[in-house]
Amino acid sequence: MSDISAAPSSEIVTAAMLAIGDELLSGRTKDKNIGHLADVLTLAGIDLKEVRIVADEEDAIVEGLNALRGRYAYVFTSGGIGPTHDDITADAVSKAFGLPCLHDDKAMALMGEMYARRGLEFTEARQRMARMPKGAEHIDNPVSTAPGFRVENVYVMAGVPQVFQAMLENVVKTLPGGARVLSRAIACPYGEGEIGTALAAVQKAHPDTSIGSYPRYDGAKGFHTELVVRARSEEVLEAAAAAVEEMIAGVTGGKTVLEA
Amino acid sequence: MSDISAAPSSEIVTAAMLAIGDELLSGRTKDKNIGHLADVLTLAGIDLKEVRIVADEEDAIVEGLNALRGRYAYVFTSGGIGPTHDDITADAVSKAFGLPCLHDDKAMALMGEMYARRGLEFTEARQRMARMPKGAEHIDNPVSTAPGFRVENVYVMAGVPQVFQAMLENVVKTLPGGARVLSRAIACPYGEGEIGTALAAVQKAHPDTSIGSYPRYDGAKGFHTELVVRARSEEVLEAAAAAVEEMIAGVTGGKTVLEA
Repeated sequence: MSDISAAPSSEIVTAAMLAIGDELLSGRTKDKNIGHLADVLTLAGIDLKEVRIVADEEDAIVEGLNALRGRYAYVFTSGGIGPTHDDITADAVSKAFGLPCLHDDKAMALMGEMYARRGLEFTEARQRMARMPKGAEHIDNPVSTAPGFRVENVYVMAGVPQVFQAMLENVVKTLPGGARVLSRAIACPYGEGEIGTALAAVQKAHPDTSIGSYPRYDGAKGFHTELVVRARSEEVLEAAAAAVEEMIAGVTGGKTVLEA
Repeated sequence: MSDISAAPSSEIVTAAMLAIGDELLSGRTKDKNIGHLADVLTLAGIDLKEVRIVADEEDAIVEGLNALRGRYAYVFTSGGIGPTHDDITADAVSKAFGLPCLHDDKAMALMGEMYARRGLEFTEARQRMARMPKGAEHIDNPVSTAPGFRVENVYVMAGVPQVFQAMLENVVKTLPGGARVLSRAIACPYGEGEIGTALAAVQKAHPDTSIGSYPRYDGAKGFHTELVVRARSEEVLEAAAAAVEEMIAGVTGGKTVLEA
């Protein structure tokens, strides 16, 4: 986990993700980057509000990116920046911003040196990885050199999880973040149907919190529930968490039951 | 895996998914339904073209749903149909279709009977799970009774993976599907930078196929690649797969190298 050094503000800061890749939509690859980004942003006090997964198709990428970048403070993308013909993210991002997509001088030098040092040819395909929208800022890639890049509020990163994670670690420490959301998870042995009405009353009585209810299913034991109270102030959080615990203690005749 | 009995046609059939839930965006829950839906649809010959993940917020659900249902043949949703106050999918789907959200008689009877049989109270919270847009068709839930539902081309299912999977199994066998996509995966010991240019030439020579290149990273061995050829005809697939294998055999001086 990265060291989040930028000072949090009291503002609510939003973000979205655009995960790019046919393989995510065919089931061939099970995405691992969405959940990781969600974890990292939550720690940084940034609200991930929306994720879209699109195919390696220029129109789909351009449309998704333009919809998201106008609406959220930050947009993070994964995938499509490798050396093969189906890696079209750099072109699509350039198009979305109306910028030319060029071989970046600094990236060419960096990668050329790395391949030379390792005695490998800096092929035309490898040179594709140095392409980015004109004027983009690099995102360092400590795993395999070829950089990601940033244009305005859009951070373009690799799809391979090890590389995505390393790039994100470099990015997130530069972001100002927002008011950290505090959360408290409370295990509840009852199914949601047992507690739903009482929980709604607790939520109503504590309007500055967000109380989430997450059913967990276990074939043998049926449903139980994880309740999560979130707030931006410690005091507000504590009061609501106490009310939830009192609510659970007050459940009568509670058995763990099968319900979705 | 379900028995896909509906006869496939030669048409291309598209789909989208709307995964609903704050917990997916906070990182608290790592989604398992997207990859499962992708696998099932691929087998059914249905192209999953887009996925969106949104929070438990009415406007976000309505907007996402209306964008997707007009554009794709089928839309599948997950999450937000449980008994608690943050389960607002039935209301949001009703709003998207301009329909009233009502306690469905058949669902009330089904669930009332199940709870009575088990000696449990059919609470107000549990009754919330019988709400759906007026006229919606049930999707049977063999795990925990409370049904999902269909309105036009939108299939609304639970977020708990065991329930989502059981509902989807009931849904997918009713769908006509499309021309099955055939695929062939070919392991390639070289990084993408080694083969990118040659692979692009193979793709160009086989325009009726889609050739995907999926980098895999292993800290010790660096990058290697999985190449996947897809086509809707066996003959076209075989020709392209042979060309890919020939291309791999022709790589000279190949070493597995570190590159994204």
